[in-house]
Amino acid sequence: MNFVSDNVMGASELVLQAILRANDGAQAAYGTDEITRRVERRFNDVFEREVAVFPVLTGTAANALALAASVPPYGLCVCHREAHVIDDECGAPEFYTHGAKLAGLAGVGAKLAPAALEAFLASLSSSVKQMPAKALSISQATECGLAWNVDEIAALSAICSGRGLALHMDGARFANALVALGCTPAEMTWKAGVDILSFGATKNGCLAAEAVIVFDPALAGTLGYRRKRAGHTLSKGRLVAAQLDAYLAEDHWLDNARHANSMAARLAEGLAVVPGIRLAWPVEANEVFPIMSRRTEQALRRAGADFREWSDLSLPENEAVGSNETLVRFVASFATEASEIDQVVAAARMA
Amino acid sequence: MNFVSDNVMGASELVLQAILRANDGAQAAYGTDEITRRVERRFNDVFEREVAVFPVLTGTAANALALAASVPPYGLCVCHREAHVIDDECGAPEFYTHGAKLAGLAGVGAKLAPAALEAFLASLSSSVKQMPAKALSISQATECGLAWNVDEIAALSAICSGRGLALHMDGARFANALVALGCTPAEMTWKAGVDILSFGATKNGCLAAEAVIVFDPALAGTLGYRRKRAGHTLSKGRLVAAQLDAYLAEDHWLDNARHANSMAARLAEGLAVVPGIRLAWPVEANEVFPIMSRRTEQALRRAGADFREWSDLSLPENEAVGSNETLVRFVASFATEASEIDQVVAAARMA
Amino acid sequence: MNFVSDNVMGASELVLQAILRANDGAQAAYGTDEITRRVERRFNDVFEREVAVFPVLTGTAANALALAASVPPYGLCVCHREAHVIDDECGAPEFYTHGAKLAGLAGVGAKLAPAALEAFLASLSSSVKQMPAKALSISQATECGLAWNVDEIAALSAICSGRGLALHMDGARFANALVALGCTPAEMTWKAGVDILSFGATKNGCLAAEAVIVFDPALAGTLGYRRKRAGHTLSKGRLVAAQLDAYLAEDHWLDNARHANSMAARLAEGLAVVPGIRLAWPVEANEVFPIMSRRTEQALRRAGADFREWSDLSLPENEAVGSNETLVRFVASFATEASEIDQVVAAARMA
Amino acid sequence: MNFVSDNVMGASELVLQAILRANDGAQAAYGTDEITRRVERRFNDVFEREVAVFPVLTGTAANALALAASVPPYGLCVCHREAHVIDDECGAPEFYTHGAKLAGLAGVGAKLAPAALEAFLASLSSSVKQMPAKALSISQATECGLAWNVDEIAALSAICSGRGLALHMDGARFANALVALGCTPAEMTWKAGVDILSFGATKNGCLAAEAVIVFDPALAGTLGYRRKRAGHTLSKGRLVAAQLDAYLAEDHWLDNARHANSMAARLAEGLAVVPGIRLAWPVEANEVFPIMSRRTEQALRRAGADFREWSDLSLPENEAVGSNETLVRFVASFATEASEIDQVVAAARMA
Repeated sequence: MNFVSDNVMGASELVLQAILRANDGAQAAYGTDEITRRVERRFNDVFEREVAVFPVLTGTAANALALAASVPPYGLCVCHREAHVIDDECGAPEFYTHGAKLAGLAGVGAKLAPAALEAFLASLSSSVKQMPAKALSISQATECGLAWNVDEIAALSAICSGRGLALHMDGARFANALVALGCTPAEMTWKAGVDILSFGATKNGCLAAEAVIVFDPALAGTLGYRRKRAGHTLSKGRLVAAQLDAYLAEDHWLDNARHANSMAARLAEGLAVVPGIRLAWPVEANEVFPIMSRRTEQALRRAGADFREWSDLSLPENEAVGSNETLVRFVASFATEASEIDQVVAAARMA
Repeated sequence: MNFVSDNVMGASELVLQAILRANDGAQAAYGTDEITRRVERRFNDVFEREVAVFPVLTGTAANALALAASVPPYGLCVCHREAHVIDDECGAPEFYTHGAKLAGLAGVGAKLAPAALEAFLASLSSSVKQMPAKALSISQATECGLAWNVDEIAALSAICSGRGLALHMDGARFANALVALGCTPAEMTWKAGVDILSFGATKNGCLAAEAVIVFDPALAGTLGYRRKRAGHTLSKGRLVAAQLDAYLAEDHWLDNARHANSMAARLAEGLAVVPGIRLAWPVEANEVFPIMSRRTEQALRRAGADFREWSDLSLPENEAVGSNETLVRFVASFATEASEIDQVVAAARMA
Repeated sequence: MNFVSDNVMGASELVLQAILRANDGAQAAYGTDEITRRVERRFNDVFEREVAVFPVLTGTAANALALAASVPPYGLCVCHREAHVIDDECGAPEFYTHGAKLAGLAGVGAKLAPAALEAFLASLSSSVKQMPAKALSISQATECGLAWNVDEIAALSAICSGRGLALHMDGARFANALVALGCTPAEMTWKAGVDILSFGATKNGCLAAEAVIVFDPALAGTLGYRRKRAGHTLSKGRLVAAQLDAYLAEDHWLDNARHANSMAARLAEGLAVVPGIRLAWPVEANEVFPIMSRRTEQALRRAGADFREWSDLSLPENEAVGSNETLVRFVASFATEASEIDQVVAAARMA
Repeated sequence: MNFVSDNVMGASELVLQAILRANDGAQAAYGTDEITRRVERRFNDVFEREVAVFPVLTGTAANALALAASVPPYGLCVCHREAHVIDDECGAPEFYTHGAKLAGLAGVGAKLAPAALEAFLASLSSSVKQMPAKALSISQATECGLAWNVDEIAALSAICSGRGLALHMDGARFANALVALGCTPAEMTWKAGVDILSFGATKNGCLAAEAVIVFDPALAGTLGYRRKRAGHTLSKGRLVAAQLDAYLAEDHWLDNARHANSMAARLAEGLAVVPGIRLAWPVEANEVFPIMSRRTEQALRRAGADFREWSDLSLPENEAVGSNETLVRFVASFATEASEIDQVVAAARMA
């Protein structure tokens, strides 16, 4: 029972079959093939407008390319201090932007409060000593499993557009947040002021498929070159296109995300009634962050569950992890089964 | 009949089935999985020594990472002036090396003569105005379809090691050159003085699978970080590992290359007897470069053959493309069928 | 009366005259001239060993070059969170290192406690997601005017060498700290484990003259190229060499620093007895950081004193700036006159 | 008698005195001082329009900053293959542009023919494999001592603006070319289509003073940050500002250039009548490139003249350096004396 991350499973059957189907015959290279064209049309439909689409293989590449398109080498990108872009990508944004700086701010649940963003921006001098802020990056869902709702996004966007910052969304768990909120992709992005999006699909049923989606046409111009130069333009572009094609077809991506979210909810409900276990943050997507005793944690591991310890940096003010406790993360995926959840809950009850 | 490149076809059946098989179950992320371990062992066997292996998705990434490990930002990388690294990668080496310079020299058949390399290196001043030469990159097979034999590689390597240059081999068509030469992978690389290799597999039966192979341990240290930072460390590493695993198993890669080479030889033999057609360079791997009349070229296209025009920059001294002629490239792949070759030859005869 | 910084005054008379003297006649370009040779010998004498010397024009260039020699593009450089390198150079280290990251830690008086450094290093994972720590940079004197003593430097150096970090000293106020401590330049640097030094001279009597001093020969190799490539190799190298030559001759630099420090001490003593004024940090070099009422601050400005407000981020734990108070900085230089100090003190008393 | 370059002499007396005068008193730091403001107004006058001015210390920095403002990291900058930017700056443009590529074309006298530029641009594919051309850089005067006249510049500019290339002028010898042509600075730059200029002053009477002059406001925005980040924003900005102030005042710069040019003309005329000596290119500024026998060359060196050998790559088609001959360069400066020229000519006659 592997809850370490939603990237430990392979692809869904539909996605896998699409790779197989796409394999036949000769196709134009470097993303000029027919399947890539179809994927582009699908994204236009998904977002209810024309968008520029740049499929890549990894979320790191998608994020770094999106930031390179948004932030000059001498610019600042604001984010939460536990954001994936600042913490988990070995400096990919710094590499792709040629030395821009990420400024990580604090905030409960890995969310930034509009006031905190405003205060930070106001604190920056206008001297050339100070790298100017050029973008804000938010993760949807956040690194603590919270979904930014449309109003929250719009509030940040208002601050950004007033100060000339691009708004980037790291949508590694885009689908999970989307179905949790019950809004449309357009509402959750460009209608709320998002300029550029890392659209994640790998964690939700693909093998390796993400896309940079550009809503602000001014940001799209350089990305074809940047992607090629980074070695992320596949010669056999069908590999990534086929995955995205099947992923977006017939709401497969939404079905996968709904399943993952429901498994997370099932786990949260199950653990909630176990004495001594409480949730660090509400469950709003497909991740569950229980605080439990070390004893319970060990019992769950003995029962065959695999999961990670997590940082307590972004706990609510009145919350803390006790000395005999631990804060852990369970991630449910499209492939998680209800029986696995139930086994975990049972083991927790018996611990 | 698509002879545009060996990247227009999908994967071989064996490789495709390996992707399918690898899909099942949970596996550790970011290249710490079992299949990746197996691939590493296979490469040790292939090269008859311990090597450092960094699988990536594209040849551009493999080349750029290899050069970043070999050349500092202020260094020079010597190569042929039609080398893929200088001409076809939108500056990927410049991006990954942080601004190193590629110096492209002339040479027949996209090969560098040792004397030309020595003369170039001798012409460089030792002033800090002059970026110092730090690596030589050669393509195996060359951009004109020639295979460097072991003695030729060793001759270049002797010059390189005498002057502190690393020797990089862009092995986009490594297997094709290897079976053409009939030597071992070890003989064609580290035994002849190659320090670092881009091992290509995509063109020869994979969907997207290459690997940086490091023979000089001093060059390996930085690559794990550089690859992650470039977004080329797949979370579901099984995707690329499974391809390489099947590719290397039971000589599948050599079988594929032998087939492609034999198809190229069949085409060359067939065209050789057609009046008015001559070969720009000998066929030593899986590419054929005929010079033919425009009329013949048009006839072949009408017969359904797709292929590219090619540069005449590296023709032998006594050769030239006439005003009514064109120099074109046919690439055979693991998937090329003899009947396709025969159709092309027949069309050429009738033109 | 300008106490804004020690860079608001021009050069000392001795330095100025040296520029004049050096102007005559033809001299070899790009730092191959005789004066530069003499400066190199002077630095060997100053540091009691052979050192590699790279004169440049600005402290920003010196710091950024030193870090580029110490930290690979994928590496981490630890420093205090108010260090000049992280805060005041518009990302120069990120530019010169090609995207390395500066990790800013907290600490009273802009000093890092060894335990804080160790805890931070221990918290870093060994995953490739995590940029590995490759250097520590400390400012001498610190941004709060404190001088690191030899034991403190050695304690940090012990941690660094145990973990493969280079130790960089930003010596923008090197001379001020040196005369304050009463040790030798060798004791304050390489004997205490410093690997590479930004030797500042501009703030202490030159117009524009700094030097990267390299104690670890392995770090020196790349700097000639990096400096040229950054446009910091003057064609008329005599300009910077002449300044450093006069600066180091006959203890001129130490005399200048002693004067500046004594002026700062005079100011501190004068203010100390004024009710309502207290010092944020002890005065250990040429900077004074009083906390005073807004009313007093305004009185000083009306009396003709110019000075800056300062950050309260690194105050001692039991200290705080009251709501009607302000924390300000006075910097004394080689050119500050006692009468200016006395005027400020008098104005403070009368406020 | 040093004719190696126009950078072997110090500053002119007027410039030197200006440094002295500027030294007194406190002044605002980082280029916010009064002298810098005056220099900006002077440049507006010189160019008969408002321009953005970024003083720096070296020509390498000026060129690299100008190209960084004009060419994105994935872009191509066209230039002559012997241009200073491609050949003599250790990759400074690659560093500042973050990996853009310089494409060096051939041309007599280090000039590019419009047809050669057009042919090159037409040869570039529109594929993302191909870095797109974003700027043309020309040197005024050229590396062979020729001055581009206004019509020639306009012809190149027409090609550039038609294809979206910025036009950069490396004006290391701007004044020499200007007085040779007898046109106005405005005519030689923005009126002829130049977008951004490296305005050289070091070689013509300053110690270390250049400026990036921006005519296209869209290119100016990033330069303040880029300059700071490169460590080229002097804290005591008066040093460079004072030099430029005196340089531009009362036509001092034009006087200096006229003198240097007249000395070069005197040398050319004197050598022209010596049998066995001929000029490689006409003398249009302050450089003379005679082809002479090795015997004569040695005689001149024995007579005390110092000068450099030069490349024959850009000779006119019908010209060649014989086996017993050498092509050398004499550079006259503001400080060259007629008696020195006469000594050289006399020695040549007697050889």
